[in-house]
This record gives sequence, C-alpha cells and structure tokens, in this order.
Amino acid sequence: MIVALLTDFGTRDHFVGAVKGTVLTIAPAAVIVDVSHEIEPQNVLEAAFTLGACYMDFPIDTIFMAIVDPGVGSSRRPIVVEAAERVFVCPDNGILSLLPGFTENYSAFEITEQRFLAERVSTTFHGRDIFAHAVGHLANGVRPGEFGRRIDDMQILTVAQPVTAGDVITAAVIHIDRFGNLITNLDSGGAASGCVIEIAGRPARLLSFYAQAEPGEVFAIAGSTGRIEVSVDRASARDVLDAKVGQEILVLRTPAGG
Amino acid sequence: MIVALLTDFGTRDHFVGAVKGTVLTIAPAAVIVDVSHEIEPQNVLEAAFTLGACYMDFPIDTIFMAIVDPGVGSSRRPIVVEAAERVFVCPDNGILSLLPGFTENYSAFEITEQRFLAERVSTTFHGRDIFAHAVGHLANGVRPGEFGRRIDDMQILTVAQPVTAGDVITAAVIHIDRFGNLITNLDSGGAASGCVIEIAGRPARLLSFYAQAEPGEVFAIAGSTGRIEVSVDRASARDVLDAKVGQEILVLRTPAGG
Amino acid sequence: MIVALLTDFGTRDHFVGAVKGTVLTIAPAAVIVDVSHEIEPQNVLEAAFTLGACYMDFPIDTIFMAIVDPGVGSSRRPIVVEAAERVFVCPDNGILSLLPGFTENYSAFEITEQRFLAERVSTTFHGRDIFAHAVGHLANGVRPGEFGRRIDDMQILTVAQPVTAGDVITAAVIHIDRFGNLITNLDSGGAASGCVIEIAGRPARLLSFYAQAEPGEVFAIAGSTGRIEVSVDRASARDVLDAKVGQEILVLRTPAGG
Repeated sequence: MIVALLTDFGTRDHFVGAVKGTVLTIAPAAVIVDVSHEIEPQNVLEAAFTLGACYMDFPIDTIFMAIVDPGVGSSRRPIVVEAAERVFVCPDNGILSLLPGFTENYSAFEITEQRFLAERVSTTFHGRDIFAHAVGHLANGVRPGEFGRRIDDMQILTVAQPVTAGDVITAAVIHIDRFGNLITNLDSGGAASGCVIEIAGRPARLLSFYAQAEPGEVFAIAGSTGRIEVSVDRASARDVLDAKVGQEILVLRTPAGG
Repeated sequence: MIVALLTDFGTRDHFVGAVKGTVLTIAPAAVIVDVSHEIEPQNVLEAAFTLGACYMDFPIDTIFMAIVDPGVGSSRRPIVVEAAERVFVCPDNGILSLLPGFTENYSAFEITEQRFLAERVSTTFHGRDIFAHAVGHLANGVRPGEFGRRIDDMQILTVAQPVTAGDVITAAVIHIDRFGNLITNLDSGGAASGCVIEIAGRPARLLSFYAQAEPGEVFAIAGSTGRIEVSVDRASARDVLDAKVGQEILVLRTPAGG
Repeated sequence: MIVALLTDFGTRDHFVGAVKGTVLTIAPAAVIVDVSHEIEPQNVLEAAFTLGACYMDFPIDTIFMAIVDPGVGSSRRPIVVEAAERVFVCPDNGILSLLPGFTENYSAFEITEQRFLAERVSTTFHGRDIFAHAVGHLANGVRPGEFGRRIDDMQILTVAQPVTAGDVITAAVIHIDRFGNLITNLDSGGAASGCVIEIAGRPARLLSFYAQAEPGEVFAIAGSTGRIEVSVDRASARDVLDAKVGQEILVLRTPAGG
C-alpha cells in the first residue's frame, strides 16, 4: 500500500523519521513516498495547493498523510477522508480544499477510536501519535469508517476566485514555485489567445511554449496544473517582478479586431 | 530489512545517491528510509539528538546508518552497535550518546573485516566505502559480531545536565527545531505545574496545550521527546528570543502557596 | 526495478510528487530512490557531475531519470539511453556528459511513441508527461529501442580539461560540495606526491588523509570521485578562499630534488 507524505516538518529534525518509523512499525509492508516536507511552516493553503496539484497522479487507493497543523493540541479534529478513489489523513483545517471537485463528493470521519492511536498521545506531535498511527492501520486494511463518526461539516477554505468585470478579469497569484513561476487562480481556459495580460503594470503575452519567449520576456502560459502561470524567460518571475502570493493579475479580453 | 539513513551529507551532492546505490547493490531487497540528510555539517551532537528522538519509533531490527564524521580518514573507528533491539552503523565519535538508556546495555564491534568493505576504500568517503557496505551486509543477514572485535570503550559524549541549587534548576537548550521551538535538557517530569520558568530574562508559563497560549506568548510545554520545550505562540521562539543552543533556562520551584 | 531520480525540481513544490505518483501508477512495483532534487535550477553541468559521481554505485539495470531541462517545450529531444549496463531517461541536453567512458559506448533513442506518453502532454512539465511515463514503462519491461528511432548525435557538453604547459598544469574547479570542498577537473593521478599546488595565490600541500592537515590548513587531496579536491581543515574551502566553479588551480611539478 502506497503512503504519500506531505508535511511542513522540514527534513532537519526527527519529525519525519518519527512518522515513517511509526507507520512502518504498524504496517511493515507500507511503501512510503515523500511528496514534500518543505511546505512553509503552518501554511495550510500552500499544502492544499501542492496536494491538489499532484494527488491525481498517484495510484488509486494511495493513502495521503497531509500534515500542516497550526492547531495541534487544540480542538481541531483529526480526520480520515475518502475522496477521488484515494484516502486522506489530516487535521480538519481546510488542507483538502484545493482537491478539484472534492467538495461535492467525499466521506469524512473523525479519528476518535483509542485503539488506533498511540498508547500515550502527546499534545504537540499528533503527526506521530495520531496521524501516523491512523495511516499505519489504514495501510493494514482498516476502513476509514472504523476510525470514528462520520462528519458533514469538514472545514473548507475560501480561496480567492477570479472576478470578471466587463472585458477585464482580475485574477491573483496563489502559488510561486521553485523556479519563480507565478501560478494564478485562473483556469487555463479563462485566457484565450489574443488576450492582453498585465502583472505589476507590465504586459505579458500568452504563449504556447516556453521556447517562444524572447530573451528576458515576461509572459503567460497554460501551466501544468491547468492554471495560467506568469514566467520570465530563463529567469525567476518572482525576482524580476518582485511578486508575492496574492498579487493581482489582469486579463484584458480585447474586442475582436481591436 | 529496513535501513534508516541519518547524515549531514545534504541532498544536493552525490553523497546520498552513492550510499543508497551501494546499499542496494549489496542488498537489493533493503527498504531505504531517509530520516535526515540535513544535520548541520559535522555537528555530531545534533545528529545524536535527532537519532535519539526517533529511533524507538522504528521497527525492531531496523538498521540505522548514522554518519556525521568530522574524523573521516583519521584513526576514529567505524563501528556496528547492537542496542535496544536495533542495529547502528556509525563512526565511533559519540553519535549514539543520546539514545536513552543506551550507555548501559549494548554490544559494539569495530568494523575491520576486509571482505565487508569496498575493494578500494577512499580516505574521504567512508560513508560509501565502509559504512554503506556494512549496512548492505547487515541487511543480508551478516551479524554485528562478524565485522570485527568487540570494543568496550565506545566514545560517549558528555551532554550538559540540568543543575539544581536550592529551588532553582538551571537547564539549557540542546536543540532548536524547524519551527523555532527550543528543546531543553530537562525531562518533562522536572518542571511541575506551578513552576516559574525564565528564559532570556522573560517568564514563561508551563502550559499543557499549545492552544492555551495567549497571542504571542512565550511559554513552556512538555515536548514530544519527553523534554521541556520553550515556544512562542504562532511564532518562532528562536527568533523572538534570539535563542541559541546552550542558552540557559531557569526553573524556579515556588514554595507551596508562595 | 530500481528507479533513481535526479532533478532540479526542489522538494517544496508538487513536481516530485507528480513524477513519483506517475511512475507508481504505471509501474506499482517500482522502487523509487531519491538521488537529489536540489540541483541548482537549470544547471545541466551540476546534474551531469552529480550523476557521473554516483551512477556506478547503483545496481546494474537501474533506471535513472535525470531531469534538468531549460529547454522544456522547445525542440530538444526526450531520450532513453542505454549505457554502462544501466538506463537513463533525460532531455538531450548534455546531462549525461560526465558519465566516465560514456561517449564511446551507448545506444540512444528519441522518445516519440505516443502510447508511452501521457494522453495529454503539457508544454511545461515533460518531467511528468513524458519522462515519468517513459520510466514507468521501462520499469514494466519496455525496451529502450521501443520508444522511438535510434539517434547518433546525442548532445555532449564540452567540459574544460586541464592544460599542461611545461611543468605547470592549469586545472579548474568544476563542482563545490555541501562541505565547501572544491572538486577539480584533474584526475587524482595527475598530481603526484611532491607537487606544489596553488589556488587563489595560496599554496596547498597534497595530503593523503584529512587528519594530516594542520589546523585551518588549505590542502589538496585525492577525492572520492577520483579527482583532486581542495579543502580547508575543519572549514569550508569555498568560504575561506571565496572560491567559485571555474576557479583556476595550478599544479607545479617540481623537478626531483628541486
């Protein structure tokens, strides 16, 4: 059974080792795959974006453990969620909000069954004492519904959506990747050929391939997650445009022949 | 057989690849698990802390390769150690010093048998040429005692212990984690409810849950490794207190009713 | 089947997860091993060095996916290469140039067969849509020659070679590792005992072991990749010498008895 890990634990401390060891102690045959442990500490939205951008690439029945958990030790609920033919173990804090189509069709259960938790649950490391234990038991065949009662009020984050006014769409940067590309909240279908795109007061052509860019050009492109991205040829758009998550991007739909 | 790796090799160079490849060439069925490769270069104490904080979470018989090795190429001995139902492969430089209860009950052997080493051992990369080879052979069933003679003078680091004088315990920060939490050398049992804790001249309440903290409060809490930690609500205690490893923390046991 | 990954994707984004998930969806039994995802973005030469420094440590038949791909979406070819009893999946941009002896004996094939690609190939993430798919099918037993036509003009980078003039060899730093050691392009055999080595105007003795160095000494040593390296005792040569890739290093072969 594949267990995919997405956390903000970093890779310098003992946290990741403790989680992996716990899963393997319970489920020795689990195949553990690191997605990322470098989510910005306590940035639930970044985790939601990253999970949403790759979970469909994993095999059906993959168990995802997604832990970015500013509320550890508070009353926020640990949950197991079935959706999209896969299983997610996480705190109930909106970390699953960017799984496409997810809000319409899922089964969520609160993790309360003592027999599936560590004998002694710390107040500061539920990643090990609750979530890794749940993942181990899931990998051994325990069904999501066995962990506790079904809940129907799972937390969903409100993510900014593009706003259309006349011929102008106002979108926003929701993620910046390692290469400095700016991923927006605008679906690739939202910007048609011939659009004029503006970011930080600069125009950006909508290109089909990176290689179409002129040296140093700021341009837009349909990215691999199905959203419009802003890039700079052979450079980081984040650095060149001094861009931040939340930054506005305008799409001007020019009249035909305009 | 599970092989858990803890090194200061970083993840940008070829070192980790060389070690994993070597283990898998000797023991194709080994299941390799990364604990961390981001230990601060040559910081044996940080490696000792991290290993001590997670090794018990791993299954019995796990083989740990723990390599932070400032003395590579000198006369420091490569060793295989059986302890706590697990096996450790490491340089004899104190890297196992923080395994709880470890100093009392272990069997250590120097790695000298030529047939378990690389054909040609470099002077600069024993991680590949000695340690990874030993790990591969252990994963294939070679017993620790087959690698060389038993030693009884394994190096143990002296780690600062809390000092009690009257009603004051003087403890110290021994590790700072990714979130900026300050882990001290004081066992959780050493600070009872009602204690007054001081760090950098600031008082810190002893809380039971992160969620009990006031916005921005500096507080202490029993951490997941069984030690008192100092944290700041939704912030990094390292940054707020400008704290460093070695920093003093005072625990004032107030008289009953005082 | 072992699949070893070497990329510049970093570990914060969804890229690595998307690649691993895709490989495991096609080839559930693949054993995925991370070599590095921290190659400097778009630095093909650094990837070539790292791959060349560890690929021989991996088992025969290992499938390497090496993706540093500044030309993604352009006409650069995706290729599958058989060499040294292993298989490499990569863009045709010279990333295999530092595999010792490689240029003389290999079979390279362009990846063009539609049935081995993603149903919909993005223009920006061939790591997922072309390379990971190819890796999955290779792990399932597809032969390299089935992916497309054989090519005989694979791109090979020209890497600076040492130049000898009289008794002076002028070499260069080609890589700097995590510890700040400077790896040069000079084979270990190229500097014999008794040589005088100079870097940044400072002399450096050629030592056999790190432990022979005086405190703080700048010295040279035969490194683990078979090349001369420059190090500083218990410090970073990069920092002490303010060294960069490309920096000159002189080897002065002193006359016998001179």
